[in-house]
Amino acid sequence: MGFRIEISDLPDLARGAAFLGAGGGGNPYIGRLMVERAIRETGRTLDLLDLEEVPDDALVIPTAMMGAPTCIVEKLPEGYEAVESLRRLERHLGKKAYATMPIEAGGVNSMIPLVVALRMGIPVIDGDGMGRAFPELYHETFHIYGVSGTPMVVSNDHHDQVLIETHDNYMMEWISRGTAIRMGGVAYIAEYPMDGATAKRVSVSGTIGLGLRIGRAIREARVRHLDPFAHLISEMARTTYSPGKMLFTGKLVEVFRRTTDGFAKGTMRVSELDGGDNPRIMKIDFQNENLVARIDGEILACVPDLICVLDAETAEPITTEELRYGQRVKIMAVAVPPIMKTPEALAVWGPRTFGLGVDYRQFED
Amino acid sequence: MGFRIEISDLPDLARGAAFLGAGGGGNPYIGRLMVERAIRETGRTLDLLDLEEVPDDALVIPTAMMGAPTCIVEKLPEGYEAVESLRRLERHLGKKAYATMPIEAGGVNSMIPLVVALRMGIPVIDGDGMGRAFPELYHETFHIYGVSGTPMVVSNDHHDQVLIETHDNYMMEWISRGTAIRMGGVAYIAEYPMDGATAKRVSVSGTIGLGLRIGRAIREARVRHLDPFAHLISEMARTTYSPGKMLFTGKLVEVFRRTTDGFAKGTMRVSELDGGDNPRIMKIDFQNENLVARIDGEILACVPDLICVLDAETAEPITTEELRYGQRVKIMAVAVPPIMKTPEALAVWGPRTFGLGVDYRQFED
Repeated sequence: MGFRIEISDLPDLARGAAFLGAGGGGNPYIGRLMVERAIRETGRTLDLLDLEEVPDDALVIPTAMMGAPTCIVEKLPEGYEAVESLRRLERHLGKKAYATMPIEAGGVNSMIPLVVALRMGIPVIDGDGMGRAFPELYHETFHIYGVSGTPMVVSNDHHDQVLIETHDNYMMEWISRGTAIRMGGVAYIAEYPMDGATAKRVSVSGTIGLGLRIGRAIREARVRHLDPFAHLISEMARTTYSPGKMLFTGKLVEVFRRTTDGFAKGTMRVSELDGGDNPRIMKIDFQNENLVARIDGEILACVPDLICVLDAETAEPITTEELRYGQRVKIMAVAVPPIMKTPEALAVWGPRTFGLGVDYRQFED
Repeated sequence: MGFRIEISDLPDLARGAAFLGAGGGGNPYIGRLMVERAIRETGRTLDLLDLEEVPDDALVIPTAMMGAPTCIVEKLPEGYEAVESLRRLERHLGKKAYATMPIEAGGVNSMIPLVVALRMGIPVIDGDGMGRAFPELYHETFHIYGVSGTPMVVSNDHHDQVLIETHDNYMMEWISRGTAIRMGGVAYIAEYPMDGATAKRVSVSGTIGLGLRIGRAIREARVRHLDPFAHLISEMARTTYSPGKMLFTGKLVEVFRRTTDGFAKGTMRVSELDGGDNPRIMKIDFQNENLVARIDGEILACVPDLICVLDAETAEPITTEELRYGQRVKIMAVAVPPIMKTPEALAVWGPRTFGLGVDYRQFED
């Protein structure tokens, strides 16, 4: 059965979504404020549906923000943009949406569909199309398991709207990314319209609830003076996101980051604490999200497994646009569920698709 | 009254359209072949309507190619692209187009609407929205005199389609240009849908007929062994595009051209023939179209007047993507009609809008 999210749950959900974002997806703080405001202004409750509760013939329209996290934190949303995308897509399809859902479970995009659901008075489905955050719009289980991303709609805060229909989902990503760039680096989308039967088949289930659970675990550990990292790993062991493993502890000694091609791309270097005169250096490459963690060229973890940069004291997740020289961090890797590691899935978001030149191996191997 | 264009007229029309393109709009040769093929394949006649013949409540949808001329000559159209844009816009509007028309009278875009008209079995209006060629989609009398460019549709040869609705025509240009760039530098559009009454108010009338007349004049002069430049100027004197004036004769000694931001931008330098040891140099800047002609920093002619680079022997117009070192050329300036030089028009395409820092003055002043 689904569940209800209260305003008091939102800080935990935001923290957990930042964790699932694996560095990307944008800091959910802004999204959390948008959800709070939408709850207060509409007076509505925020009810999540389990995938199994969605009627097979119901229209599901996922909604999201798209853009570079570095732009997202500078160009704040008004709150109506993603709603306008969904409404435009409804008009095009000639049918009302039964529910919306996230395209990704990480970052601000865990929150945008909650705002849309509240503003429109429809439920939101507890699940998503990535099981984490990924940079591009074809990085979705929806795409991997055969759904067309288009017709899709891209909107901005000036009520500009672009309705895109393409021959495949790669062209959808390419054209919509160009549009988002020209809209200032951030835009709001409704895409992958599908029926309930399809949504059940192609979605990663329960990822909003998972985010809430992760956020709660980190907070509880602080309150109860537990080691938040150990507590989190033991909590994750009771989900499909397991095992989790601590990879490294160190200090951020370099962040190279460019906002280019509509993404925040870069590399961070983390120098081992207590490494003596010749500390080991962990290098993590990212494209919005953390893609691969290496020491001396050896891959310790890579996509699609989560590579999470956490504050070394509080275990608060740090998104890529918030990385700063001198931060003390711990790096955690988390294995993702089987639906995200099928051959079809790895063909879309495995390490080779990001140019890493190696096959996927789970980090603990 | 309107008139009929026969296959035997097409070489003249293409030549005249290249002239009216003022260096831009892409070489009409490809478009001419498309029209020929469409006449043969459809068995239809190509009937042009005068603006006055269009019913006030009829839907008019202009069609065009958009992109850098340097890309247009490399990425050839299939022939159905602009038709698909128009049909998509008809579906969106829920109404059939009564006629199509050019958005610009110069270059390949004098031909694209003829192809659309033949393929769809509708007439094409003898007039356009620029009275020449200009680089951007708000460089149109349609825009200047208050018509919304959107809803517009951008299509390519892979049946990808983007329907754009923006809050103004500058955003339309910005978003659609981004789409055209990501479609490979060339795309096919239907835009500025309007009724017949509006089309009569905001169009430059008779510009397809004018192109035909210009192309014929150049050919006739060759056949009759007249000076083609003098003959052309005397022929133009009987139209609203007058006076024409020979500015310069010389050899192309430098062409600097980049395909950037979706345009072919650059500068040519023409060295005076018979200028002795210290020849004068005419410098012409272009963005798809020739924008300004200077000698020693002094402006001899500028937008919106036509600056035409013609073969020094044959008076054949040379488009900017065809400029080559060593070509012997004559530079002709032609004054454009009053509708293109109102304060409203100069605010959109006068010399200041291209960063030239001066007010418009007609060249013969």
